[in-house]
Amino acid sequence: MRVYNFSAGPSVLPEEVLRKAASDMEDWNGSGQSVMEMSHRSKTFEPIIADAESRLRKLMRIGDDFAVLFLQGGASTQFAMVPMNLKKKGKAAYVNTGVWAKKALAEAKKYVQADETASSADKNFTYIPDVKTIAGDYDYAHITLNNTIMGTRWAHIPETRASDGSAFPLVSDISSCILSEPLDVSKFGLLYAGAQKNLAPAGVTLVIIRKDLIGESAVPETPTMLSYKTHAENASMYNTPPCWNIYIMGLVLQWIEKNGGVDGMKARNTEKARLLYDYIDNGKYYKAPVEKNSRSIMNIPFLTTETDVEKAAALNKRFVAEAEKEGLVNLAGHRLVGGMRASLYNAMDIGGVKALIAFMERFGKENL
Amino acid sequence: MRVYNFSAGPSVLPEEVLRKAASDMEDWNGSGQSVMEMSHRSKTFEPIIADAESRLRKLMRIGDDFAVLFLQGGASTQFAMVPMNLKKKGKAAYVNTGVWAKKALAEAKKYVQADETASSADKNFTYIPDVKTIAGDYDYAHITLNNTIMGTRWAHIPETRASDGSAFPLVSDISSCILSEPLDVSKFGLLYAGAQKNLAPAGVTLVIIRKDLIGESAVPETPTMLSYKTHAENASMYNTPPCWNIYIMGLVLQWIEKNGGVDGMKARNTEKARLLYDYIDNGKYYKAPVEKNSRSIMNIPFLTTETDVEKAAALNKRFVAEAEKEGLVNLAGHRLVGGMRASLYNAMDIGGVKALIAFMERFGKENL
Repeated sequence: MRVYNFSAGPSVLPEEVLRKAASDMEDWNGSGQSVMEMSHRSKTFEPIIADAESRLRKLMRIGDDFAVLFLQGGASTQFAMVPMNLKKKGKAAYVNTGVWAKKALAEAKKYVQADETASSADKNFTYIPDVKTIAGDYDYAHITLNNTIMGTRWAHIPETRASDGSAFPLVSDISSCILSEPLDVSKFGLLYAGAQKNLAPAGVTLVIIRKDLIGESAVPETPTMLSYKTHAENASMYNTPPCWNIYIMGLVLQWIEKNGGVDGMKARNTEKARLLYDYIDNGKYYKAPVEKNSRSIMNIPFLTTETDVEKAAALNKRFVAEAEKEGLVNLAGHRLVGGMRASLYNAMDIGGVKALIAFMERFGKENL
Repeated sequence: MRVYNFSAGPSVLPEEVLRKAASDMEDWNGSGQSVMEMSHRSKTFEPIIADAESRLRKLMRIGDDFAVLFLQGGASTQFAMVPMNLKKKGKAAYVNTGVWAKKALAEAKKYVQADETASSADKNFTYIPDVKTIAGDYDYAHITLNNTIMGTRWAHIPETRASDGSAFPLVSDISSCILSEPLDVSKFGLLYAGAQKNLAPAGVTLVIIRKDLIGESAVPETPTMLSYKTHAENASMYNTPPCWNIYIMGLVLQWIEKNGGVDGMKARNTEKARLLYDYIDNGKYYKAPVEKNSRSIMNIPFLTTETDVEKAAALNKRFVAEAEKEGLVNLAGHRLVGGMRASLYNAMDIGGVKALIAFMERFGKENL
């Protein structure tokens, strides 16, 4: 029996996608091969990657001035690729909104002067700093649009402004919110996402980069494989791409199309998040640590109202264990936030949220 | 209907593995989740990666003094990681046996003085240079044990000797021969392999590294994700590994065990290669360009005996097209070698080789 999987990533995929992948396993589309067996340079595989790119471009309305790259190594590899490839004068601005934003900042310091231009560390990252404009003579600015661990989300896209008044590129990690709602790609210079939340199984990393930002790296030690130019010039086929992962991404994109595209996802996700936040805010057993206007619709951390630290920790453990017995899995919160966390990615059915809320209410009555 | 897939990679997988992957797709082992959906830090996924490592260690007899890492980015990323991480004094020796060896050498030059200490370029890489010992004050020496494009294979492992008489680490790309026959891992400091030939679908890269070689990089620009230390200290879980690809690798390793381990694979592969080479050498329609004592048992390039260049090129095209109609796919040779190439990886059934030979004979009779 299938469970409701609230994992922060890798995470739930649409059942329809899994069934299709299983039924095509030994013989994709009459090719006599599994997608896992296809030469990436064959006429059987080429339409698969082309189809994934084309569906993504349509869904996200990505302009022709942007390249779409299918890479490997996760967002953590992008933390190095971004400064290695976008360095010009040597200064970059980073907004620190928690664990992953901080990791991106730390890695950038190897290659550029990376300034922490804003931070929400003062309140344990429970809000998004009110940054309307990032100003300075920076090669780029970096934000983490949705913070998986902290459960925060930028509700607006900041502007950038150099001292001569021009705008410089805005870069964003969108790993945990890509395709969850509409996003104006044209406001960014570069977007990247590890696939294992809303897109595909872990192992493929998506990069959407404005073509004028692709060029020779100013860091001579940049590995060939960590240069956007390498991958852009070879249509993500400089070496063997993660073919299976790209194929599953294509199936997920088809599922998103059938379910109303990004507008459909936004409606679906907003409703799921609203249900859970409303239950938490209006009930007496739980609380959500994140400020209301900074709340993620993808990752929802929550705590019990128990104030004794040791009792609360024991309750959290019991919550996670009992939920698991009822088929609600991966609800443990990140150790830096504590409590529980429910990740409600695109593929999470509203039925999962309702089942979670019913469990929360029962657990609260019995234990709080 | 399944085809016989002679692709150089990604390539054929055991049908048993594909069936198991399909049947487990929606619910792996009663977990209620697909392996593609599992949190990599969950108790459902942890045994999967541990099992793959343990099976690999047994099959290859990897000592406890070696770490096994599941990485991303393919062999091409290793071309940078090897010099970035093994650099000490700053010199490395590379044996040039063709395209991939040359790429490894070119990338290394960004980080170390990389000397081409031997080469078979003089005869278009149709042999392995007779190198018994690689001597000099090198941080490491690099060889490509099996050359996928050229169809050559080292029949012996060279020694290394510094001026003080000590040995320095030998590094080898074993992407296209891993687990095809026994290999004495203890003779190497580092082995790496893109998985998409004998191991798994593209997207996971295996690194087997002697633990004393893991440390801080002498290249300060080394990205965190390109440091072996990062991955060794975190048991390949510094960030999300390519979980599905590792799971399939585990299934492939089980299949290898059931089929006699690496000794079984050697018997199987030697017989397949013997059949094809014997047919080519003893018949009148085809020739194998590689010298006999340097021949790969994994990748077998062959040409027709047609001597007119234009006619030969037309014949090659016809061969590949007609073979495909009979369910023998991906037989086009690499443009640098010409002709055809049959890759006979572990999962290629002997029936495929017999069918290929029968086709070759018929094609030869009709066209040559």
